[in-house]
Amino acid sequence: MFKKKSIVPVAVIMGSKNDWNIMKNSCDILQKLSVSFYKEVISAHRTPDRLFSFAESAAKKGFKIIIAGAGGSAHLPGMLASKTLVPVLGVPINSTVLNGIDSLYSIVQMPGGIPVGTLSIGKSGAINAALLASQILSIYDKNLQIRLQNWRNENTKNILKNSQFNENS
Amino acid sequence: MFKKKSIVPVAVIMGSKNDWNIMKNSCDILQKLSVSFYKEVISAHRTPDRLFSFAESAAKKGFKIIIAGAGGSAHLPGMLASKTLVPVLGVPINSTVLNGIDSLYSIVQMPGGIPVGTLSIGKSGAINAALLASQILSIYDKNLQIRLQNWRNENTKNILKNSQFNENS
Amino acid sequence: MFKKKSIVPVAVIMGSKNDWNIMKNSCDILQKLSVSFYKEVISAHRTPDRLFSFAESAAKKGFKIIIAGAGGSAHLPGMLASKTLVPVLGVPINSTVLNGIDSLYSIVQMPGGIPVGTLSIGKSGAINAALLASQILSIYDKNLQIRLQNWRNENTKNILKNSQFNENS
Amino acid sequence: MFKKKSIVPVAVIMGSKNDWNIMKNSCDILQKLSVSFYKEVISAHRTPDRLFSFAESAAKKGFKIIIAGAGGSAHLPGMLASKTLVPVLGVPINSTVLNGIDSLYSIVQMPGGIPVGTLSIGKSGAINAALLASQILSIYDKNLQIRLQNWRNENTKNILKNSQFNENS
Amino acid sequence: MFKKKSIVPVAVIMGSKNDWNIMKNSCDILQKLSVSFYKEVISAHRTPDRLFSFAESAAKKGFKIIIAGAGGSAHLPGMLASKTLVPVLGVPINSTVLNGIDSLYSIVQMPGGIPVGTLSIGKSGAINAALLASQILSIYDKNLQIRLQNWRNENTKNILKNSQFNENS
Amino acid sequence: MFKKKSIVPVAVIMGSKNDWNIMKNSCDILQKLSVSFYKEVISAHRTPDRLFSFAESAAKKGFKIIIAGAGGSAHLPGMLASKTLVPVLGVPINSTVLNGIDSLYSIVQMPGGIPVGTLSIGKSGAINAALLASQILSIYDKNLQIRLQNWRNENTKNILKNSQFNENS
Amino acid sequence: MFKKKSIVPVAVIMGSKNDWNIMKNSCDILQKLSVSFYKEVISAHRTPDRLFSFAESAAKKGFKIIIAGAGGSAHLPGMLASKTLVPVLGVPINSTVLNGIDSLYSIVQMPGGIPVGTLSIGKSGAINAALLASQILSIYDKNLQIRLQNWRNENTKNILKNSQFNENS
Amino acid sequence: MFKKKSIVPVAVIMGSKNDWNIMKNSCDILQKLSVSFYKEVISAHRTPDRLFSFAESAAKKGFKIIIAGAGGSAHLPGMLASKTLVPVLGVPINSTVLNGIDSLYSIVQMPGGIPVGTLSIGKSGAINAALLASQILSIYDKNLQIRLQNWRNENTKNILKNSQFNENS
Repeated sequence: MFKKKSIVPVAVIMGSKNDWNIMKNSCDILQKLSVSFYKEVISAHRTPDRLFSFAESAAKKGFKIIIAGAGGSAHLPGMLASKTLVPVLGVPINSTVLNGIDSLYSIVQMPGGIPVGTLSIGKSGAINAALLASQILSIYDKNLQIRLQNWRNENTKNILKNSQFNENS
Repeated sequence: MFKKKSIVPVAVIMGSKNDWNIMKNSCDILQKLSVSFYKEVISAHRTPDRLFSFAESAAKKGFKIIIAGAGGSAHLPGMLASKTLVPVLGVPINSTVLNGIDSLYSIVQMPGGIPVGTLSIGKSGAINAALLASQILSIYDKNLQIRLQNWRNENTKNILKNSQFNENS
Repeated sequence: MFKKKSIVPVAVIMGSKNDWNIMKNSCDILQKLSVSFYKEVISAHRTPDRLFSFAESAAKKGFKIIIAGAGGSAHLPGMLASKTLVPVLGVPINSTVLNGIDSLYSIVQMPGGIPVGTLSIGKSGAINAALLASQILSIYDKNLQIRLQNWRNENTKNILKNSQFNENS
Repeated sequence: MFKKKSIVPVAVIMGSKNDWNIMKNSCDILQKLSVSFYKEVISAHRTPDRLFSFAESAAKKGFKIIIAGAGGSAHLPGMLASKTLVPVLGVPINSTVLNGIDSLYSIVQMPGGIPVGTLSIGKSGAINAALLASQILSIYDKNLQIRLQNWRNENTKNILKNSQFNENS
Repeated sequence: MFKKKSIVPVAVIMGSKNDWNIMKNSCDILQKLSVSFYKEVISAHRTPDRLFSFAESAAKKGFKIIIAGAGGSAHLPGMLASKTLVPVLGVPINSTVLNGIDSLYSIVQMPGGIPVGTLSIGKSGAINAALLASQILSIYDKNLQIRLQNWRNENTKNILKNSQFNENS
Repeated sequence: MFKKKSIVPVAVIMGSKNDWNIMKNSCDILQKLSVSFYKEVISAHRTPDRLFSFAESAAKKGFKIIIAGAGGSAHLPGMLASKTLVPVLGVPINSTVLNGIDSLYSIVQMPGGIPVGTLSIGKSGAINAALLASQILSIYDKNLQIRLQNWRNENTKNILKNSQFNENS
Repeated sequence: MFKKKSIVPVAVIMGSKNDWNIMKNSCDILQKLSVSFYKEVISAHRTPDRLFSFAESAAKKGFKIIIAGAGGSAHLPGMLASKTLVPVLGVPINSTVLNGIDSLYSIVQMPGGIPVGTLSIGKSGAINAALLASQILSIYDKNLQIRLQNWRNENTKNILKNSQFNENS
Repeated sequence: MFKKKSIVPVAVIMGSKNDWNIMKNSCDILQKLSVSFYKEVISAHRTPDRLFSFAESAAKKGFKIIIAGAGGSAHLPGMLASKTLVPVLGVPINSTVLNGIDSLYSIVQMPGGIPVGTLSIGKSGAINAALLASQILSIYDKNLQIRLQNWRNENTKNILKNSQFNENS
């Protein structure tokens, strides 16, 4: 499976290889912010034992935050959360005909006791899971805080640069 | 926990003690049809290990069918199904403000590979899970088939008896 | 119509020829598991008499389980279930502009008394109906149980093989 | 069952005795308009044979229009329509936790070939089914047309009478 | 505008020229059944006066039934119904991003007093509006009844012809 | 009907007397802001002629803004807007089992060409329609602008006053 | 940023440059009606300070109406409205997988106190926001009223011209 | 307003005093876990300046995490998130007729760039926001980790204690 990597604070888990085209957006953001991450496909329904062994050892392996993306009856984030105290952030993926409403409800409507911090459906959610993970890590990491602030400033500057149209355009 | 009871073919599992007022309807029907059952509260999120150990031993314990009712992010039926080949029937329970739509989507939208036979939301679903379980068991149990047929006939007769109104009522 | 085939335990019924591209996934799985099946198009609304005569003779013909897929006002699974004690599994098909929500509600929201075990919308549901039918048949068929276990193991192995990414990919 | 009543043009059918508190609104309107009607409880799922025999004989019995109210997986109107050319008007009843959305979709989303004229959910729908039935019958019944026009005028007058508030109320 | 055509029993009205690709299915069916019809674009919102003058004169012009198709805030069927006792059948058209849910609710949820018989969303609804109109007209037209019966028989035959698959296909 | 009141800039129209318990919130706000208003019940479906005559004369009567509240198939705001250039603000009322979703879609999804400025469902919407009407009128009425600003300041002050809890409460 | 333009009564604001293909429809209509407008991209979430400074100075800059289009968690219109008494018209944009339902709810469901006049989702909404803004401005601008009336007449004429089909087409 | 409290890591903000009966569940959990918190009512729409000044100073005041609960057009969590890098957790509150669906969409569907970790609707969400906040804080606080683990163990034990029914109950 995987070796302990104490310097890897974030695990990016997805329910199926098909979810990668969404979840790679999490990885891209983490990379831009120089946050190390581990990534793996774990299907809650097809590899439940791996889900459990991953979740049980997540804290010991040094993971500080788990990002989990899944579609349909998206049980992955909630089941991970049920087996660890490492904070879990969930990304609903719109892989079924219900446009991700099924995934959103499956992920966000957790019962009192086991929280999953849920982000928006699809690509925006994958981006935001990585940003929220970084914000959480930056609580005790001033340098990451600065990198995050720079990322936001850059983002804002791009929008401001493009915000005004030529009256005649 | 529980002892092996080879003569108990149905397990009725619910995610919370609050689900009992819905799930007791499953038990009532099973009782009427003289189908033995075992019942237990197992929370997918709050007692995940029990969920796994129950599912792993379900076949060995002699259970032929599992009925699982849950509300909200209802992961119980799907996670049971992921850990056993014993057929799982799911009952969405309307315990959150979303009226059971969240539970329905969480239970029914399983990915290809791990089926959950889903019944209607709430009381009707609990009744029907017990009936479907009995129909399944009756495939190889002529006596149960007869009891089921009698139950249906009785049910039909009641409706027929009450179906016609006095024109002036 | 069709001749009695006592060795065919599963009937795969669909409401329209257009549903075949979804329902063939049921047949593919049954074939892989060496479960014989009979298939037919029966429209609840356009061939209601055939629906009734099929349902009435299903048990006598030796069918142990009926898989029924339908879209829109999907009355096929529920009406079959009302006419036989053979367990009915329903597959909602997304053939209208409502993305299968209409079919899902029509199939799953059966009144107490007449159960339909409902699977997910579309292709996953067709796959899962076949798997659930096989799990049900395997209750008294050890060999099928083994084939099912092998299918699952294969499925899990494929996911495990593909679950880990190269850190630099 | 019931005797041929050639002077009874409308049949009011409901899926369950519990639907009567909604469907009596159809009967009240028909009575006010002096349109004779026959009423009966026929459950599509629990008394399917009665549904078929009723639908098959509806034209011969002299029924010109069938009003059918049902809740949940509301198959009654559509199955009646599949078995007769007598026009069927459907009333979705909000008897499940889904507030009648399930009934509405089950009734209105009929496939091309078998129409059901669907009215609004609940009491308004029951009233309107009776009015639409009467409007249909009035195509060839001048007296009924006059009674309908009077009913509408009365209805309008009541609203006009109450339409203006005292500025200081 | 249009001249009185006493031999034209059905008016097919649509809210926009873009609705024609759906509403032509109504016209095709009427043509097949040799039911004469008149067709016109009337926008409830953009040509409200025409809507009113059409509805006011519909009965006098000899129309027996009005079929009205509209999308979005689909007010056309309901406003026609408010101005005439000629029965109105409504077809929700999926012309906005909400897939016809907006049109369905706007058309079907009429208040008690003014009925619109609503058909399914889109093409099936257009077909069914024409069939229901014909069924209504056939109440007093034996020949049309026969043509309708033939159409249904043809429809059923086509499905039966295609209903059975080659076991090996 | 009503006499021309050149000093009454706002008309508050509702589809049914039952809507008054919601729409009175519009009137309360207008009264607090010293904006004169006229109020009347006009049912789009039951008094369509009154709807047309009201809308046709609204500008001449001196109305600057029309507030229209309606439930279900809420055609009132859109039909008023189709007959006048006086701006129409719509309030969806939750008077049916669909919780106002039907009214919201009926009111907001107007086709390009005929706008209705839609507010929130129910009481908040009625309050906001009155506030938006007042903001519109205040474009050319400095005194009203001041009264509005005072109202907001008051509103803000109340929230600020109550915003902090005693740590031990 | 931008200079005071007292002759520019309308500001068209959008949450992202991607919203321009929808919001340009607002600008096209304003141009046709010779209503001057200012346009700018302001992201509620990515440039919140600009949102505040724009809203705070909107009245002083002479803007009479603000049109704001946004998608997803569409906070732009509501936050603008919270910071100014200039009337805000909101356009929900269907830029996420939820088809604009998320934007509609975010924009229209404002709490009592801070109104946003919401138009339909997407292109029709952008057109209608411009028309409603013009209708509001025309309350005190007879010439604009005439231009609006001409636009409507033109619009109606086009529909009338195309409203009748050749019976044989 | 409030004084800097460097030892208070969590701020619990709600959009209205009426949200307190939900949000107090966050405070109860934090208290049980001995996590200090500050609580305040800040309305995004009625006190936007306070929202900005709070968010701008949140990091400096020493807050590590902000919990924000809001209903309807719930802009509070997203606007807070747009003004600070302190992680924001959002709780959708079911205070309108749409049962919290509007709040859920407004909170969760944030655009890429500004994350809000969203919890379930209502009471469970308030509980879980506090638990997730504590889990985040426990990343660098072993003692809190132990208290959390104890809380979970307690929770699990209670469920286990109550999980088995007397067969005859």
